[in-house]
Amino acid sequence: MKAIVIHAAKDLRIEDHEADAPGNGQVVVKLARGGICGSDLHYFNHGGFGAIRLKEPMILGHEVAGHVTALGEGVDGLRIGQLVGVSPSRPCRRCRYCSEGMFNQCLNMRFYGSAMPFPHIQGAFRETLVADASQCVPADGLSPGEAAMAEPLAVTLHATRRAGDFLGKSVLVTGFGPIGVLSIISARRAGADLIVATDLSDYTLSVAKKAGADIVLNTGASPDALDPYKAEKGTFDVLYECSGAQAALTSAITVLRPGATILQLGLGGDMTLPMMQITAKELVLKGSFRFHHEYATAISLMQKGLIDVKPLISETVSLQEALKGFELANDRSRAMKVQIAFG
Amino acid sequence: MKAIVIHAAKDLRIEDHEADAPGNGQVVVKLARGGICGSDLHYFNHGGFGAIRLKEPMILGHEVAGHVTALGEGVDGLRIGQLVGVSPSRPCRRCRYCSEGMFNQCLNMRFYGSAMPFPHIQGAFRETLVADASQCVPADGLSPGEAAMAEPLAVTLHATRRAGDFLGKSVLVTGFGPIGVLSIISARRAGADLIVATDLSDYTLSVAKKAGADIVLNTGASPDALDPYKAEKGTFDVLYECSGAQAALTSAITVLRPGATILQLGLGGDMTLPMMQITAKELVLKGSFRFHHEYATAISLMQKGLIDVKPLISETVSLQEALKGFELANDRSRAMKVQIAFG
Amino acid sequence: MKAIVIHAAKDLRIEDHEADAPGNGQVVVKLARGGICGSDLHYFNHGGFGAIRLKEPMILGHEVAGHVTALGEGVDGLRIGQLVGVSPSRPCRRCRYCSEGMFNQCLNMRFYGSAMPFPHIQGAFRETLVADASQCVPADGLSPGEAAMAEPLAVTLHATRRAGDFLGKSVLVTGFGPIGVLSIISARRAGADLIVATDLSDYTLSVAKKAGADIVLNTGASPDALDPYKAEKGTFDVLYECSGAQAALTSAITVLRPGATILQLGLGGDMTLPMMQITAKELVLKGSFRFHHEYATAISLMQKGLIDVKPLISETVSLQEALKGFELANDRSRAMKVQIAFG
Amino acid sequence: MKAIVIHAAKDLRIEDHEADAPGNGQVVVKLARGGICGSDLHYFNHGGFGAIRLKEPMILGHEVAGHVTALGEGVDGLRIGQLVGVSPSRPCRRCRYCSEGMFNQCLNMRFYGSAMPFPHIQGAFRETLVADASQCVPADGLSPGEAAMAEPLAVTLHATRRAGDFLGKSVLVTGFGPIGVLSIISARRAGADLIVATDLSDYTLSVAKKAGADIVLNTGASPDALDPYKAEKGTFDVLYECSGAQAALTSAITVLRPGATILQLGLGGDMTLPMMQITAKELVLKGSFRFHHEYATAISLMQKGLIDVKPLISETVSLQEALKGFELANDRSRAMKVQIAFG
Repeated sequence: MKAIVIHAAKDLRIEDHEADAPGNGQVVVKLARGGICGSDLHYFNHGGFGAIRLKEPMILGHEVAGHVTALGEGVDGLRIGQLVGVSPSRPCRRCRYCSEGMFNQCLNMRFYGSAMPFPHIQGAFRETLVADASQCVPADGLSPGEAAMAEPLAVTLHATRRAGDFLGKSVLVTGFGPIGVLSIISARRAGADLIVATDLSDYTLSVAKKAGADIVLNTGASPDALDPYKAEKGTFDVLYECSGAQAALTSAITVLRPGATILQLGLGGDMTLPMMQITAKELVLKGSFRFHHEYATAISLMQKGLIDVKPLISETVSLQEALKGFELANDRSRAMKVQIAFG
Repeated sequence: MKAIVIHAAKDLRIEDHEADAPGNGQVVVKLARGGICGSDLHYFNHGGFGAIRLKEPMILGHEVAGHVTALGEGVDGLRIGQLVGVSPSRPCRRCRYCSEGMFNQCLNMRFYGSAMPFPHIQGAFRETLVADASQCVPADGLSPGEAAMAEPLAVTLHATRRAGDFLGKSVLVTGFGPIGVLSIISARRAGADLIVATDLSDYTLSVAKKAGADIVLNTGASPDALDPYKAEKGTFDVLYECSGAQAALTSAITVLRPGATILQLGLGGDMTLPMMQITAKELVLKGSFRFHHEYATAISLMQKGLIDVKPLISETVSLQEALKGFELANDRSRAMKVQIAFG
Repeated sequence: MKAIVIHAAKDLRIEDHEADAPGNGQVVVKLARGGICGSDLHYFNHGGFGAIRLKEPMILGHEVAGHVTALGEGVDGLRIGQLVGVSPSRPCRRCRYCSEGMFNQCLNMRFYGSAMPFPHIQGAFRETLVADASQCVPADGLSPGEAAMAEPLAVTLHATRRAGDFLGKSVLVTGFGPIGVLSIISARRAGADLIVATDLSDYTLSVAKKAGADIVLNTGASPDALDPYKAEKGTFDVLYECSGAQAALTSAITVLRPGATILQLGLGGDMTLPMMQITAKELVLKGSFRFHHEYATAISLMQKGLIDVKPLISETVSLQEALKGFELANDRSRAMKVQIAFG
Repeated sequence: MKAIVIHAAKDLRIEDHEADAPGNGQVVVKLARGGICGSDLHYFNHGGFGAIRLKEPMILGHEVAGHVTALGEGVDGLRIGQLVGVSPSRPCRRCRYCSEGMFNQCLNMRFYGSAMPFPHIQGAFRETLVADASQCVPADGLSPGEAAMAEPLAVTLHATRRAGDFLGKSVLVTGFGPIGVLSIISARRAGADLIVATDLSDYTLSVAKKAGADIVLNTGASPDALDPYKAEKGTFDVLYECSGAQAALTSAITVLRPGATILQLGLGGDMTLPMMQITAKELVLKGSFRFHHEYATAISLMQKGLIDVKPLISETVSLQEALKGFELANDRSRAMKVQIAFG
């Protein structure tokens, strides 16, 4: 079985790995598609991010879908040949936070492709994956590429749920990788009215437009583009901050109305906040991290046709071309979500 | 100026009334459309409802839209000829509840067409209406019929917001007048996944289907139709109880999952609740009454094309045919929302 | 080892049972105190409640505390001789609801002393109890009687948390067994301002007064006692409905202010609700069932002296006098919480 | 009538002002006590704060209480001689935010002693104050000094309510002026369990201890004092950030548990946030600004004896000594709340 392994920054290899046998309650999944995520790119470009560093080779990948090829003992609700999205989240269900239902904060989390503990948690970019049946969500009716999008979509659904009721709300999204675009889609699905998107790249703004943004503003070309939204203390009820850029955050805060929520999704560096405005307008900044049961919600909303992620999948490369795929994904001027086709 | 006046049960008259002059901050609206609401029908059929009784003649109507024909002093943001929805809600902004932001609970509310205080609050079914500019929401781009639907839509948007986040939720709606159908539309707009609708009439279920229900069940013809949803303590996250029927509520509760919310919209009579299930499944029953700033939200979502109410408007009659309109609206086997065309 | 076993209504026996050995992660607890709960009384008086019936002999009891006498393998954080409260709640941590963090709704719950599944879940009124270490909360500094009160206190803390922020709120409590009195204590701890309590018995009202109620009203003696609270649509923000009595609920609703919350704690029979008031005042009725991590909160708040439950413990009887204890507990005119001293 | 007027930084004068006559719905209040607030000190020390600058002389003061000496027409619910707290908050009740119930965000707010609009809003440090009856909350049973504390107490009650349910929560408070101490008191009243306070001054920590903090830590003397609270991703559920100090915020964040809330009360300068931790622990930062109906709640909780603010009032000076009072209030090493006695 081939797997995509990162050894150090820019040292990505396709290697042979032994395939596991399914244990009790587990299934074997023949991988079909794997999406390259921002954190995969961090490992690829820099060997880690923040204080997190690679200390041993690690299989990358956590946005995956494939077909069930074998069922371990005690598995029901899945059948051979079925397309499933595989959730990369494996909380212990026993620790302090799991005991309170905060599974995404599990102290012993084994999330695919994470260098946070040592030994690292190996990822899912491999031809054959053994997973717990409880990680597998049937995705009948979807394409494998759509099913693999359930993971990043779950991230933005989780963030969106954290902001509460969206009916008729005005939303600003700053910065566009796939998470920015999925934020637009999630906000619209949750009932947002006006959605404005800003970025510095016309390519990403064109995808944002296709994904449903009402107005897209290139704040590089037109630095004052947000000015009309400053009137009466501000316009937007919710900001999805996906740029990680200080300038974007600072200028976005001037157009948030009192009581607005800032959703912080990226795992970026330190940022400076204008505390006077935060206090005086009673803004709420909420960190949002991964997801839990929103993974199944993501699959279901796509199956119903209530969310369409196809416009985001800009490129699909073969396993052999994985390195090319990573380089493509690095280029925000022409690629949105890049997926790898396994087998 | 003609107005539609109820004198007693079944005694509906089209009468001449003096037109008012607009005061400071007011406008004159030439009425275009007025929708007949369930409470209008209560006055028409029974001379009141619950403990509320007509004690003097009252102009009916509170779902109205029209064109601005004159602006009083100090009005801006509106222009002559503009189509506006006119919110029937006029809180005092001074009382205990207004001071806490609970405007729909105002102790001195003057809601159009209400016999609750005496003298009664006269309604809006009149050819010419003088209204506060703050009641008027520009409805450019909508038809007058759609604009008049802003009022009942605001009712279901308000209820929907009271149930919080809807992303991926399963929803059951019982009983279909226009409020039931608008509940389906609002729940879908707010992100609901599965929507199931039950009623005893195939006609109303057909409108429910058109409005976006995934599954419609005639529980008169098939009393066990909800049984498949009972598994594992129940299925639905939210119930919109719009039937006012004890049997519908009782059977709906058996298919609600733990923690589910029951939205109670109708001003019906007493109902018996299975407290053991309410407690053991930790259900939440929420009354929902009218609306406040959801009126503007309703207009805006229709303008953006995010909500379409046109399938609900089943009949439009002329002012001269108002009586026929009321009788039509009484017949749930063939009419959904009936509107009156003024002028 | 002796245990208190119910065979049928009024057939309570003290019987010998084999003591278990502690497994991995388990401890042996020598029971010190066990409180008699309303559900124990239901089994004692009627052999069940609602649709739930005894089908085989069952050890009663779920409000217990004792001293650790042996530690199984893999247990840390507890020591021999330590006083612990033992939570009766044992969710599976695997089912649909556990996976969403709703542990008190576990599909496979094994809550001590419950005849709901068959075979029944045996209870904790036994001289020696083998429990999971995760059920045991250290209670150093408390008396065994106080520690045994953690369970019913957790019930009212859970209900109180479900009603949200209490700062400065006005609270009405109807009906007083121990749950009513603990509701007063919990509401006060959560920041309530005015607390009014109603009942038909002067004895229970005297305990309510001692527990911190500002005003106690015997609505049997003075049926109009609540009338002054009706002004301006009502007074109270929160109602703890602990009476299970239709008349109490109906009259309480007339003094709830718009937006108020009704907490329904009892597992009583059907009740008729005035839906017109529920809707028009936008009341919220919330069922509340058991608890989860509030058990540890209960212990901690008692240890800090922030909650004092001692005034509730009206009688303590020996294991040999258990039958007498149950009869005492049945008499609301002179007993509040009755506890059994083991060993 | 004498008033305390700020002309420029350090230029504080006691001047004669004409007394106003009460209009419709207004009363005359003979001032008894006025507390010096942090924003008063900003004007005194620097002539403003942030971008806000004095542009004309302004009467300071917004924490005041006094006795009613005359009633204008249409006033009821107040009587001559009655002690009242006077809320400094005067929203317009008409603008966009007032119409949504967000009165503390009023676009036309006239909050006593604010240089934010021009002409400035004159303050309440004057021997005789004409106020709307709706601003006056009867404070029978309180001392004038306590009644004047209703304003800063309302600030921390408002912030506390924004953090939701507090039952059994662990709370950290950093930085102690009066707002820090009132945060401790408010958190305890709302049900907090563990309360830890940090500061650099032993004097302020001693007041924090008296106000109910369980543990006080001088993080100047012991920089690692918070380390024990870092285990398992952190300890505290809520942080009241009252220091405005970057170092305090940064180190506090390391001991917040996942999902914790940071309440930001001070109107301080920019701060740098560790976004990686905010996101990964899903922290929530909430600005909190002034208050609305919490002013009456503050009075009521003090009247019931549920909150005691007397330990905070460290000095009372006469009107003639106002300058000395401001200098005292500036000295955090020996003064907490300084009040001025009028007449």
